[in-house]
Amino acid sequence: MSPIEDAGEFNLIRRLAAISSSSTRFPVITGIGDDAAVYQPKSGMVQVITTDALIEGYHFDFDFYRMDQIGYKAMAVNLSDIAAMNARPVLATMALGLPGSFSMEDLDALYDGLTSAASRYGVQIVGGDTTRSPVLMLSVTVIGEAGKHDLVHRNGAGPGDHICVTGNLGDAAAGLDLLRSHTKPETLGDKVWDVLTTRHLMPVPRLDLVQEWAKKGVRPSALIDISDGLTNEVHHICAASGCGAVLWESKLPVSPELFAGAPKSRTPVDYALNGGDDYELLFTAPCGVLTQMAPDSYTTIGVVTETDVLIHRTDGILEELKAEGHDHFRAE
Amino acid sequence: MSPIEDAGEFNLIRRLAAISSSSTRFPVITGIGDDAAVYQPKSGMVQVITTDALIEGYHFDFDFYRMDQIGYKAMAVNLSDIAAMNARPVLATMALGLPGSFSMEDLDALYDGLTSAASRYGVQIVGGDTTRSPVLMLSVTVIGEAGKHDLVHRNGAGPGDHICVTGNLGDAAAGLDLLRSHTKPETLGDKVWDVLTTRHLMPVPRLDLVQEWAKKGVRPSALIDISDGLTNEVHHICAASGCGAVLWESKLPVSPELFAGAPKSRTPVDYALNGGDDYELLFTAPCGVLTQMAPDSYTTIGVVTETDVLIHRTDGILEELKAEGHDHFRAE
Repeated sequence: MSPIEDAGEFNLIRRLAAISSSSTRFPVITGIGDDAAVYQPKSGMVQVITTDALIEGYHFDFDFYRMDQIGYKAMAVNLSDIAAMNARPVLATMALGLPGSFSMEDLDALYDGLTSAASRYGVQIVGGDTTRSPVLMLSVTVIGEAGKHDLVHRNGAGPGDHICVTGNLGDAAAGLDLLRSHTKPETLGDKVWDVLTTRHLMPVPRLDLVQEWAKKGVRPSALIDISDGLTNEVHHICAASGCGAVLWESKLPVSPELFAGAPKSRTPVDYALNGGDDYELLFTAPCGVLTQMAPDSYTTIGVVTETDVLIHRTDGILEELKAEGHDHFRAE
Repeated sequence: MSPIEDAGEFNLIRRLAAISSSSTRFPVITGIGDDAAVYQPKSGMVQVITTDALIEGYHFDFDFYRMDQIGYKAMAVNLSDIAAMNARPVLATMALGLPGSFSMEDLDALYDGLTSAASRYGVQIVGGDTTRSPVLMLSVTVIGEAGKHDLVHRNGAGPGDHICVTGNLGDAAAGLDLLRSHTKPETLGDKVWDVLTTRHLMPVPRLDLVQEWAKKGVRPSALIDISDGLTNEVHHICAASGCGAVLWESKLPVSPELFAGAPKSRTPVDYALNGGDDYELLFTAPCGVLTQMAPDSYTTIGVVTETDVLIHRTDGILEELKAEGHDHFRAE
């Protein structure tokens, strides 16, 4: 093991520069190695920018995360925010806080995860700050671009629009609970364990949908990514758009793996409604737009209304849908 | 005191949005409150981007930093990187890691510092992530802009160019040593204490020089900001430009306050050469350019040569100039 304390800051920067500079290309003019990176935005496009940090002990711990998975996830959650604007990610910077006991091997694995997520989605890493920190801390900033009229905000939902989600919900939160229990229950098949835990460890930013919608020339009326649980995100869209919603519990897309593998402390429906870290997209769209989207790319779970955020339970009860997803601050 | 744990994450985001949205204007189209911020780059300009993080216990501690000074400094050090490219800062995002015991009053003070540094230099804060962290952690990203041919990199120094610095060197490091000693020595005047400690606590990004050079239509051949000590930065320029340098110890700009107030453990010259956190600019320029700059805006401290980085000591000795500034990683 080679402790990074022996390497010195400038060697760390050089290592990062070596990883990133090989791929510097338009629109990046200057990558890592100067006081700031330089890029040339595409003429006529607007730029979108987002920053998200992952902190050891709060967003991940080393009990079950591999180092490359942490790097991958720090990039992926930011890419998901770009997808949630219906934009295309272009470049990224990062600030890493590293404990002094961190090894160069750990750092290489962390960079591998960051760069593999970046390159999978065509993103260039153009700048970085490495500094000491009591725990591992990764703050990633991603810049993307879009045509101004292709952007989709949270505030465009209108009464009558359908409410839709991509993929399945709740797997990631169930995966986290499984990982926290540390041992795979004997009754649980390998595939179920893998599907649920991978959904938590390595979320997939749904940039494939952004690409598909662009190809078909369609876009949702409102769009958000599901990072803190479906209920929170539905409330965000309703608050921003000044509207209400009715969801049907029976329509929530729940994977067979979640039914088979969810810890018994919570129901699959609770995981789907309030589990965090899915990074699927929640969007609204009128029928005429929906019919142009691939039917297998989304599930309609409700409709936009004038006021009140409600849910039809499978037992027939219609009740208020409370925002009970993840809150990074409230004491647990 | 109102603990942030009682506020919840979305209230924190709302508070930040309230601070920033009042000032959203071109080129910012969407500020805080969506998945990402949106801005429209000025046509024909290139964009520069930089990220720097400050971590409690490594970059600052609460023994002598006020909360607003920490916010101010986190923004200022990033603005300095934009100045070091000869660019103009435009917008910023930040990721804040906050201990659970942090109060809303602390957070307001932190925001005050961040927004006052931002607004002083015309920068809009357009996005933020607030999350839990074992210690206070601020990662700021700033985007600036410049005409492509106005940018100044580290690699443009040529033999015969003068080597110049703005302002005085070493004050900030002496100020830090004074702050660490916790008590003002009886022999030290208030003004000396204030000048030296303020240089450490609230560094001034030299964007005034960027503005002045633009007004006169001149630019240095190479440029860097002095964050980790002059010797490190001279070596960075020489390595990037493939050249050498000779400095004159007698020419180093040292303030009367540093002579009067520097702790006796280090000489004023050592502070000037190897002290960190000055955030002055180090630049190179041929004579023809220098004569167009305001003579009181810089001090010539040496010349660019073909090879070797040397210093003429005041006792007549010519010796190698070692890079002995601050390294955030090497164990102390």
